Amino acid sequence: MMSPAIILSRPQLGENIGAAARAMANFGLSDLRLAAPRCAWPNQKAVAMAAGASELVDAVRVFPEVRDAIGDLNFILATTARDRGIARDVLTPEKAAKTLRAAAARGEKTGILFGNERAGLDNEEISFCDAVITIPTAEFASINLAQAVLIASYEWFRSGDATPPARLDRTSLRRKPTRAELLATFEHLEGELLASGFLYPPDKVEGMCRAIRATLHRARLTYQETQTLRGMIVALTKGKHRVRKTP
Amino acid sequence: MMSPAIILSRPQLGENIGAAARAMANFGLSDLRLAAPRCAWPNQKAVAMAAGASELVDAVRVFPEVRDAIGDLNFILATTARDRGIARDVLTPEKAAKTLRAAAARGEKTGILFGNERAGLDNEEISFCDAVITIPTAEFASINLAQAVLIASYEWFRSGDATPPARLDRTSLRRKPTRAELLATFEHLEGELLASGFLYPPDKVEGMCRAIRATLHRARLTYQETQTLRGMIVALTKGKHRVRKTP
Repeated sequence: MMSPAIILSRPQLGENIGAAARAMANFGLSDLRLAAPRCAWPNQKAVAMAAGASELVDAVRVFPEVRDAIGDLNFILATTARDRGIARDVLTPEKAAKTLRAAAARGEKTGILFGNERAGLDNEEISFCDAVITIPTAEFASINLAQAVLIASYEWFRSGDATPPARLDRTSLRRKPTRAELLATFEHLEGELLASGFLYPPDKVEGMCRAIRATLHRARLTYQETQTLRGMIVALTKGKHRVRKTP
Repeated sequence: MMSPAIILSRPQLGENIGAAARAMANFGLSDLRLAAPRCAWPNQKAVAMAAGASELVDAVRVFPEVRDAIGDLNFILATTARDRGIARDVLTPEKAAKTLRAAAARGEKTGILFGNERAGLDNEEISFCDAVITIPTAEFASINLAQAVLIASYEWFRSGDATPPARLDRTSLRRKPTRAELLATFEHLEGELLASGFLYPPDKVEGMCRAIRATLHRARLTYQETQTLRGMIVALTKGKHRVRKTP
């Protein structure tokens, strides 16, 4: 079974990347991706911290932005400590591992997205993902980046024994959209909602889009369903008088 | 319930001690002890890596030998990656946490002993302990010291009766629509899709509606989200030329 990709957004410290790589290797993960790293890459401190996991560090792929790093994936979880106030699924690491196993068993490419050491993930990055993982903690909730990767990897490994065989229901035969396809669908809808005046006023647009994306993520659309949704948008807007706003 | 002491035997790197302290604080442990540290103490790198857990670093106690560091404890587990060929209980971290909880519940003072970064624990040190914890890993079994402390601490926290759910996510606070409200939303959408010609030909309409409803059911919409969806439909269809079909 294909293990999840680990995507680090704007990581600052080579040490953390190396420690994350080592943790991944401990628990059978191998696909590490960096989006817009804030440190030099390749990075000697990462190699040093990776210890015996240097192969994994050598194979790291670097992308200009998160959306590029996740474009080929079908199912993605975001890790965050904070409640962002948007209704979406919040999973424990244990539940997340089971959910990822189920997705992988259906043939989906999966990933887990981790934010920058200081700022975490921003709201747009979270809007790219299907659901959120929050690691339960004591009062002191600020977990080191590499240690968060470790917990996610450890739970993935632990969940292996109990993986049920993939159920061959019709769902499992349907292809999930790649993240690039899903984001294109979101942007199609948002473009029409903006043109229609639904997304208004401007300072609320970002928050409204995030809420809509969270709703759609929960539906776990198949590729066919994204196409249906796009067809519905085209049909609903066909033959409209465009309301043009004067600048 | 009193949480276990963490005892590090001959630690070499201040960074690992600091990262271990941070991991302990994340999961509600507070008693960190060093036996014969190989690095300077106090240690600036430890303070830096501990981030917000500096109180815990300030409270670290240093002992000349492991036997001094564990003298006041009643029940102690040793962490080791290797099978030492001695017949003794080998626990997973999960089972270890339950065992420690049971001991603490009996009023015993508990501890977990971790070896030096390079050499691990020696046989005498293991002989001081009641049982052994081995963290299950993939082929690459060499776990960083702070990350081993993290897993033990994480499992301790998880095993607590009082472990809270990841977070009281807002979803659970938001009202779900009544089935009447949900069906009204479906019918609003279907009415517009029928008017737009999307639901066509007539003998396919029922099946298409069922598929759309299945997608929407999966999103488990809140009441507010049904209202948002209806607002989107109104906005997208506003100002349309209606295509009237001649009967």
